[in-house]
Amino acid sequence: MKVTKKIVLSEHDMPTQWYNIVADMPTKPLPMLHPATKQPIKPEEMEGLFAKALVEQEFSQERYIDIPDEVRDLYRIYRPTPLVRASGLEKALDTPAKIYFKNESVSPVGSHKLNSAIPQAYFNKIQGIKHMTTETGAGQWGSALSIACKHFGLDLKVYMVKISYNQKPYRKSVMQTYGAQVIASPSDTTEVGRRMLAEYPGTAGSLGMAISEAVEVAMTQPDTRYGLGSVLNHVILHQTIIGQEAKKQMEIAGDYPDVVIGCFGGGSNFCGISFPFLRDNFVEGKKTRFIAAEPASCPKLTRGKFEYDFGDSEGFTPLLPMFTLGHDFEPASIHAGGLRYHGAGTIVSQLLKDNLIEATDVNQLDSFKAGVLFAQAEGIIPAPESTHAIAAAIREALKAKEEGSEKVILFNLSGHGLIDMASYDRYFAGELQNYAVSDEEIARNVAKLEKLA
Amino acid sequence: MKVTKKIVLSEHDMPTQWYNIVADMPTKPLPMLHPATKQPIKPEEMEGLFAKALVEQEFSQERYIDIPDEVRDLYRIYRPTPLVRASGLEKALDTPAKIYFKNESVSPVGSHKLNSAIPQAYFNKIQGIKHMTTETGAGQWGSALSIACKHFGLDLKVYMVKISYNQKPYRKSVMQTYGAQVIASPSDTTEVGRRMLAEYPGTAGSLGMAISEAVEVAMTQPDTRYGLGSVLNHVILHQTIIGQEAKKQMEIAGDYPDVVIGCFGGGSNFCGISFPFLRDNFVEGKKTRFIAAEPASCPKLTRGKFEYDFGDSEGFTPLLPMFTLGHDFEPASIHAGGLRYHGAGTIVSQLLKDNLIEATDVNQLDSFKAGVLFAQAEGIIPAPESTHAIAAAIREALKAKEEGSEKVILFNLSGHGLIDMASYDRYFAGELQNYAVSDEEIARNVAKLEKLA
Repeated sequence: MKVTKKIVLSEHDMPTQWYNIVADMPTKPLPMLHPATKQPIKPEEMEGLFAKALVEQEFSQERYIDIPDEVRDLYRIYRPTPLVRASGLEKALDTPAKIYFKNESVSPVGSHKLNSAIPQAYFNKIQGIKHMTTETGAGQWGSALSIACKHFGLDLKVYMVKISYNQKPYRKSVMQTYGAQVIASPSDTTEVGRRMLAEYPGTAGSLGMAISEAVEVAMTQPDTRYGLGSVLNHVILHQTIIGQEAKKQMEIAGDYPDVVIGCFGGGSNFCGISFPFLRDNFVEGKKTRFIAAEPASCPKLTRGKFEYDFGDSEGFTPLLPMFTLGHDFEPASIHAGGLRYHGAGTIVSQLLKDNLIEATDVNQLDSFKAGVLFAQAEGIIPAPESTHAIAAAIREALKAKEEGSEKVILFNLSGHGLIDMASYDRYFAGELQNYAVSDEEIARNVAKLEKLA
Repeated sequence: MKVTKKIVLSEHDMPTQWYNIVADMPTKPLPMLHPATKQPIKPEEMEGLFAKALVEQEFSQERYIDIPDEVRDLYRIYRPTPLVRASGLEKALDTPAKIYFKNESVSPVGSHKLNSAIPQAYFNKIQGIKHMTTETGAGQWGSALSIACKHFGLDLKVYMVKISYNQKPYRKSVMQTYGAQVIASPSDTTEVGRRMLAEYPGTAGSLGMAISEAVEVAMTQPDTRYGLGSVLNHVILHQTIIGQEAKKQMEIAGDYPDVVIGCFGGGSNFCGISFPFLRDNFVEGKKTRFIAAEPASCPKLTRGKFEYDFGDSEGFTPLLPMFTLGHDFEPASIHAGGLRYHGAGTIVSQLLKDNLIEATDVNQLDSFKAGVLFAQAEGIIPAPESTHAIAAAIREALKAKEEGSEKVILFNLSGHGLIDMASYDRYFAGELQNYAVSDEEIARNVAKLEKLA
C-alpha cells in the first residue's frame, strides 16, 4: 500500500471558476460564420437558440468564468471525481511509466456529460426559460441533461435517433426515470421530421436529423431553448473543471503529466482534461504533450482538412472553422457512438493546426482489446468511447517501457461501459471489425467544402 | 452550499479491521447443524467447501478481525465510499429529518458485493486454491467475484440461473469481460445438472439448482472451493466495513443516526451498515433503531418463523437457525432479484428474535415509486433492491415531518440500477404489480420445518 491509489478532493476544494483557453491561445480561433451571409456571426443571432449567458460564454475572451453556486451545488452529487493511479494497468504492461486516470465514470449517468448539462440547464432557468430540447445518439448526453433539467424545474424533450431508441431501450428508460420526454427521431412532432418520414418511411434516423428536430422546436416554441453536449466553446469551457481538479490532484500525488490523453468525438472530454494543463505550456513553458485519440473510422483530426464546415449534416448551423471530414461524411457504425462526429470544435482545431496538440487514431478491435485489459486490471469496464484513450495511453506506456522511461501519463476515463455491454458481447463473439476510410472518400468529401465559406 | 453534500474519506482512513458482532451479542446465535447428524457442525466439516480462513471467520468469536493488506489494497479501487447527505430528497419530502445515505453504488460492479468477493478470493488464493465456483441470480454477486478472482489469479465458474442468463445478457457480459466462465444452470457440466435437465427439459433453472451445481464442482474438483455472497457469518463480517466507514463519516458530519436502514435479502448490506452502530447500543447504551426493509412478497422477517432450516432449496446445506418462510417457499418474480431469498442469516435472526433490530416490508409498486423519487431528487437511479431501503427511509422521514422532529436517518444505497433499467421500463409501462402472500401459504411452508432439526 505504498502508492496512493485514489486522490480524492473534498467538495470544498472544487474549482470555483471554469478556464477559458481562448484568453491564452497564441492564435485565436477564426470566427464562426453565418450560414447565409458568410459574415462572422453575432452573439444576438444565437440567442434564439441558446440561453444568453451561454452565448456570452461562447464568445468570451475572459480567462476565468465563475461557476455559479447553484451549479457547484449540483456538481457535488459526484464531483470532485477521483484521480486514480492505474497501478493494475502498469503492472499488466510491466511498464516503468506512471499511469493516472481521471475517473469521470462516477457521475450518476456514468460519464462526464453532466459537467455541461448542469450549467446549461441552470443558465436557461435563470433566464426564465421553461423548456429545453436536445438530441441524443448513444444517450449519454440526453441522460445528463435530463437530470439537470429535472433539478432546475425545466421540462425537456430529447430527440433520440430512432435506431438507438429501439436498440438502446435502457438509455431511454434512464431519461424517462429523470422525467424527460424521449421522442424517436424522425418524428411527427416537427415539420422537418414529418417531411423526413414522408420522404423516407422506415428510416432509422440520424444525429443530424435529430438535431434539426430539436432545433426546430427550440426556434418555434415559446420559452424554449436548445442544448448541445459537445463541440461548442461554452461546452468545452464547462468541461475544464475536469482538468482543473486533475491539476490539484496531480500536485497532491507529487507528479506532473508528461502526456495527457482523451478520446475525441466533438472535443468535450479531451479539451476538459487538457486545457488547464495546456495553459502551463503557454505560460510556464512546460512541454507536456496532448493526444486526442479518435476512431480510425472517423479520422477528422489525423486525416481531415481544416476548413469552414457545418456542425450538422443538414447545414443548418453556423459555419465553423474546423478539422472535418465534411458534414455529409457517414462514419461506420462503430460501437463508440459518441465519437462518430465529422468535425472538431473550433478551439481544438486551431490548436491542432498550430501543432500545440497531437492526434492519433485507434481502430475498433484495438480499442476493445484495450478496454478488456483495463477492466481486468483496474476493475472498471470502460465505455467504448473511453477505450480509445486507454489504447493511446497503453501505446505511450509501452513506448516508455522500450525507452526505460518513468514517463507520467494522464488520461481521462470519460465514462463506464455498464450500459454498453451489448458492444462487449459482440466483441467477444468476434462480430466486430475494423473499418478503413479511403483517401479518395475523404478527398471527395472535403473538396465540397471550399465553396462553403 | 452550507451543508456538506458528500463526506469523503481518504483511503488512508479506511478501516483496518472487520467487526464481528458475535463478540458483543447478548444472546449468541444457535449453532449450525449438520444436515445428516443434526449435531452442531464442526469447522473442519466446512473446509472442503470454503477456504479455511473463511471457515475460521464463520465460527470466530473475536470482536475484530484484521483486513489483510492485499484486501485493503484492492478495496481502494472504490473504497472508502462516500456518505451523502440526501438534501434533494429532504427537500422533495419537505421533512425536518436529516437523511444520509452510504453510497455503495460507486463500486465498479455497482453494488456492495465486492466487499466480500475480494476477501473471499484472497483467502482462497493464499491457501493455494486455483479455482472457485459460485452461483448468481441477478448477477451482482457473480460480477463481483469475477473481478476479485481475476485480480488474485483464480479462475471462476459462475452458474447463472438459466432464465437470468437469457434475460440479463449484460450481466453475463460483465462477468465475461472480467474473465469468468459463465454457465447457464442447469447445465450438462455437473451430475445434478444433467439429472435436472433429464427430468425437466426446458427448465428455466433456479438459484437452488445453481447453488447445487456450484457446490458439486467445488466438492468434486481438485483445488476448488465455493463462494457465497450473503447469509453466512463471514460474508456479513466483510460487509461491516460499510458501517465502520459510515461511523467515521457521520462523526465528521457532526450527526449520529437515530435510525439505520438497509434493504434485506440474505442480510449482507443491512448487517454491513448496521452492526458497527448496533455495537454502540450494546456498549454505550445508545438507542438507535435498525430497520431491515424486505419485499412484502418475501416476508421472512416480518411474517416468517424462527426455526432451523436449510439455506438452499434442495436441502444440501447445514441447518441454520433463522427466520424463514421455509426452504421451498417460492417468492413471486419481483424485480428486486437480490431480495428473493427464503431465510435470513443466523446472527441477524437472533437479533430480531431478541428485539434488538426491527423489520418492515415494502411492496413492489411502493419500492419503485420511492426509487423514481430518489433518482429525480438525488440523481442516482437506485437498484430495485435498494429502493426498499429508500421507501423505508421515506416513511421514517414523513413520520418525522408529522412529529416535527429533526430525526437523523441513515440508509445504505446498496447499488445503482443502471443495469436494471428494464425493470424501470416495466414499472413505467404499468406492467408491475404487488404480490400478496397468504397466511396459509406461510403456515403450510413453515409447518414442515419442525421435523428438520
